[in-house]
Amino acid sequence: MSDPMPPCPDAVFLAALRAIVGDTHVLTDDHDVEPFLHDWRGYASGRAAAVVFPADTDQVSRVVALAAQAGRNIVPQGGNTGLSQGAVPSDDGRGIVLGLRRMTAIPEIDTPSGVLLAEGGATLSAVHDAARAVDRRVPLSLGSEGTAQIGGLVSTNAGGIGALRYGPMRDLVCGLEVVLPDGRVFRDLRALRKNNTGYDLRNLFIGAEGTLGIVTTVALRMQPVLRAAAHAWIALADLDAAVTILAGLQERFDTAVQAAELLSGPQVDLVLQHIPRTRHPLESRPEWSLLIELGSTDADADLRGRLEDWLADRFEEGTLTDAFIAQNEAQAAAIWHLRHSVSEANKLHGHSLSHDVAVRPSRLPQMIRDCTDAVLQAHPGATILIVSHLGDGNVHFIVHFTHDAWARLSDPAGVTRDVMARVHDATEALGGTFSAEHGIGRKLRQELAARVDPVRMGLMQDIRAVIDPDRRMNPGAVL
Amino acid sequence: MSDPMPPCPDAVFLAALRAIVGDTHVLTDDHDVEPFLHDWRGYASGRAAAVVFPADTDQVSRVVALAAQAGRNIVPQGGNTGLSQGAVPSDDGRGIVLGLRRMTAIPEIDTPSGVLLAEGGATLSAVHDAARAVDRRVPLSLGSEGTAQIGGLVSTNAGGIGALRYGPMRDLVCGLEVVLPDGRVFRDLRALRKNNTGYDLRNLFIGAEGTLGIVTTVALRMQPVLRAAAHAWIALADLDAAVTILAGLQERFDTAVQAAELLSGPQVDLVLQHIPRTRHPLESRPEWSLLIELGSTDADADLRGRLEDWLADRFEEGTLTDAFIAQNEAQAAAIWHLRHSVSEANKLHGHSLSHDVAVRPSRLPQMIRDCTDAVLQAHPGATILIVSHLGDGNVHFIVHFTHDAWARLSDPAGVTRDVMARVHDATEALGGTFSAEHGIGRKLRQELAARVDPVRMGLMQDIRAVIDPDRRMNPGAVL
Repeated sequence: MSDPMPPCPDAVFLAALRAIVGDTHVLTDDHDVEPFLHDWRGYASGRAAAVVFPADTDQVSRVVALAAQAGRNIVPQGGNTGLSQGAVPSDDGRGIVLGLRRMTAIPEIDTPSGVLLAEGGATLSAVHDAARAVDRRVPLSLGSEGTAQIGGLVSTNAGGIGALRYGPMRDLVCGLEVVLPDGRVFRDLRALRKNNTGYDLRNLFIGAEGTLGIVTTVALRMQPVLRAAAHAWIALADLDAAVTILAGLQERFDTAVQAAELLSGPQVDLVLQHIPRTRHPLESRPEWSLLIELGSTDADADLRGRLEDWLADRFEEGTLTDAFIAQNEAQAAAIWHLRHSVSEANKLHGHSLSHDVAVRPSRLPQMIRDCTDAVLQAHPGATILIVSHLGDGNVHFIVHFTHDAWARLSDPAGVTRDVMARVHDATEALGGTFSAEHGIGRKLRQELAARVDPVRMGLMQDIRAVIDPDRRMNPGAVL
Repeated sequence: MSDPMPPCPDAVFLAALRAIVGDTHVLTDDHDVEPFLHDWRGYASGRAAAVVFPADTDQVSRVVALAAQAGRNIVPQGGNTGLSQGAVPSDDGRGIVLGLRRMTAIPEIDTPSGVLLAEGGATLSAVHDAARAVDRRVPLSLGSEGTAQIGGLVSTNAGGIGALRYGPMRDLVCGLEVVLPDGRVFRDLRALRKNNTGYDLRNLFIGAEGTLGIVTTVALRMQPVLRAAAHAWIALADLDAAVTILAGLQERFDTAVQAAELLSGPQVDLVLQHIPRTRHPLESRPEWSLLIELGSTDADADLRGRLEDWLADRFEEGTLTDAFIAQNEAQAAAIWHLRHSVSEANKLHGHSLSHDVAVRPSRLPQMIRDCTDAVLQAHPGATILIVSHLGDGNVHFIVHFTHDAWARLSDPAGVTRDVMARVHDATEALGGTFSAEHGIGRKLRQELAARVDPVRMGLMQDIRAVIDPDRRMNPGAVL
C-alpha cells in the first residue's frame, strides 16, 4: 500500500469520493447526513464528513482504499436496526458512513444446490421473497426483517427465533465477499458444502461487526419449504419443566421443532394489558408458558395429532398443567402475535433494562433464579420479565420499571450499571455469556474488555492488528 | 515470553521433557519412535528427537512452552489416519512428535443441553460409546473411527457420510480448548449455542491441521438417537438424475435424508469382483447407483413405506430405472458393506490416483464428465471410478490402473502429476475445490500455493505469522 497522504482537506477528499460513486451518492448536508449518525433507539450518536453509497464491490473497494490513503475512518452501516450501537460513527467527524442501499441485487439462485447469493444491501425480506419464488426459504426470522440488510445481519451474526433449528446467521452462510480495510477484496463465493483448503476465514468476518471489513456479497443456504405445522401454548408445571419438555420434544420430533419460546407470567400480563385485541389462550394464567412451533416438509406429517398425543402424556406425568393447540392459522397467528408484541408492550408500560444473556439450556432455570435474586435484592421496586429462546439457552432478562418508578430514581445511570453487573455476574458464574445474539457494538465494549478471557482478548487484538492495523474500520466498536 | 535459549543439546532438552511428562512418556529409542515418523499409507516420513505423551492440558502447555524456548518444532499427531500426510515430522530431527494417547477422558456429559466434552486423544469410537450410554449420538462416521482421535478429527475438519445431514466436524463442535504455539491456553468450553462476544476464533483452529495450536479438549453437540430407518439402492436413469433425485428426496424428507452416496458401475463391479460374499442388489447393472439412508427419531415414521411410494413416482417419471429397498437390517448392512469395501477392492485390483474434489451439487455431473474427458484424453489406459458424497458435491474421483498397467508406466510420478493437474483444473473451471474433506497436509501444500486466491493466501499467512511467528507448529503442513 502506498504511504498515507498528508492530512487531506475535506473538499479534496469529498471530490475524490464523488468521482468514485457519483455526485448524488455522497451526502454531506447536515439535514441529509443526520439520520445516519445515531442508532435507531437514539441512545448514541456521532459525526461524519459524509455518507457514501457505492454501486458495486469495485466502488466499495475504491472508497475504502481512498479512505485508507486519506487516513479517514469508515463506519459500515446496514439497516441500522442493531441493539448494541454498532453502526454509530465516531465523534471526530472526519470519517465516513458507508451504506450499501444501492447494492440490493440477488445475483444468483442455484436451486438444486440450495444456494442464493445476495448483495450486502438486500433486506432480509427481499431475500425471503427471492427464495419463496423458487419454492425455498432462508430460515432467519426477525422483527426488523423489512429493514435489516444481509451485510449487517452477517456482520452481527443475527439470531432470532429460527436459530433453534437452523442456528444463527453463521450457520446459514456458505460464502462471503468482503472488502478488507486496505481495499483488497476477499472472495469466497464458491458456496461449497465442503472445502478444506487452509484456514477458515469466513467465520472470522461473520460477527466481527464491521471491524475487519465490509461484507459486500453473501452466499446463503436455502431450505425446503415447510408444508405442515403445529403450534401450541403450553402451561408449564414450573420453570424446570421447560428444559425437560423441550429435550423430550426434540427427542421425539427432532428437527421438526422449529421454535420454543419461554415467557414469564408477568411478561404475558403486560402484553395483554397494553396490546389491543389480545387475549390469553389459556384460562389458567400460568407462571411460565412455552410457545412451540413444529414444522415439516411432509404435508401428511400430522404434526398436530402427534403433538396432541405427546402433550397428553406430559400432562399425565405432571410436567405441564394445561395446553392450547392452535386449530387453524388464525389461532396460530394469535399465539405468535402475543410473543412478537413483547417489546411494544414493555415500551408502553415503562422503562426496560434488557440483558441478552445465555447459558447451556440445562442451566437456564438456575440462571433465571440467580439473576432474579441478585437484582431484586438491590432493586425491590423492579419487575423481572422473561422472554427466552429456550433451546439456545438465550434469555432476554428484562428488569422493568414503571415510567413513574423510573422517573423517581435519583441515579438512573447508576441503577442501569448496577443491574447490568448483577445480571452479568450471575450469568458468568454459571458459565454463560453476557451477549448471546445482540453483539458488542459500542454498548458492551467495556463489558467485553472487563469479562473476556485475556488469552482470547489477546488473540482478537492480534487479528485486528494484522487485518486493520490502523483501526479505521468501525472504530470504537467491539475492541 | 522469554528469549529463546541458546541451541540446547538433545540431552538437556529431553531431560526437561521427562521432568514434565514422566520418564516413560518420552520415547527416544529408534525402535519406539519409528511408528510415529510416517503416515499410515507409508507415502511420507521424517525424523524426530522424541515422541512425547503429556497427561493433561497443563503438561501440553509446558511441553509446548519448553519447545518454544528451545527452538524445537512440534508435530501434533492424533490417530495418524489422515490421507494428506499432515502428521509427519520434518527432516531436521530436532523436533518432537506430540501425541495425546494419555488424554482420552470424557470429562463431562450434559444430556439436556446435548453437550459432550472429550479430551483430544479420545477415539471417535469412544465418543460414540459415551453418547450411546446416555441415549444420544455424535453423528460423525468414518472407516477409521476406532483409531482416529477427536483432536485430529477437529484439526482436519473431518467429513464422511454423515456430513450430508449434520455437516462436517466444524458443525458438530460447540467448544474447544487449544494450547497455542507459545504455550498459552485458549479456553472456549462453555459450549453455548449463542455467544456473540467478539471474533469467532474457534473456527480458525478447526481445520488448521495443527499449525495454529494443539486441540486438547473438544465440546461436541449430541443428537437424538434414530429409531426408524430406510435404506435403498437406486438405479439412476443417468448421471444427471442423481441431482434431481436427491433434491426431490430432500424436499420430501428434509433432514430424514441421512446419507446419499453415488457409485459408478465400474466401481461397483470392482467391489463385486474382489470382496468375498458380495452380490449386486439389482439384476440390472446400472451405470450409476445411488445409495440412500433415511432416518428418524420417530419410531412410527414408516420411512420405508413412504420411500417406496416416492420411488415408485420417480420410476413413473423416468428418473430411475430400478430400486431395491432393504426389508431388514441384514439387507441394509449388505448395501452399505458394498459401499465401505470400495478402498479395499481398489487396492486389491490395482493402483489408484484418488482426488478429493467438490463443486456445488448442481454442477457435479458436469464435473465428473469434464474430469473424465480430460484424464482419458491423455491416459486412455486408465479406468475412472466414482465414489461420491453426492449431497456435499464431493467426489472421490479415482483414476485407476491395473497393477500390470501401472508397472508398465515409464514415468509413474509424471503421470500422477499430470492426472492431478487435469482433475484439479477441470474442477476449478466449475468453481470447485481440490480438497473437499481430506485437507492439505504436506501432500497438497504446493497445490494450495498454486491455486488459492492471493488475497486469501495473504490473510492465511498473516494469521499464521501472528499466532505462530516462528512456524514451529507442524512445519511443512498447509502453508
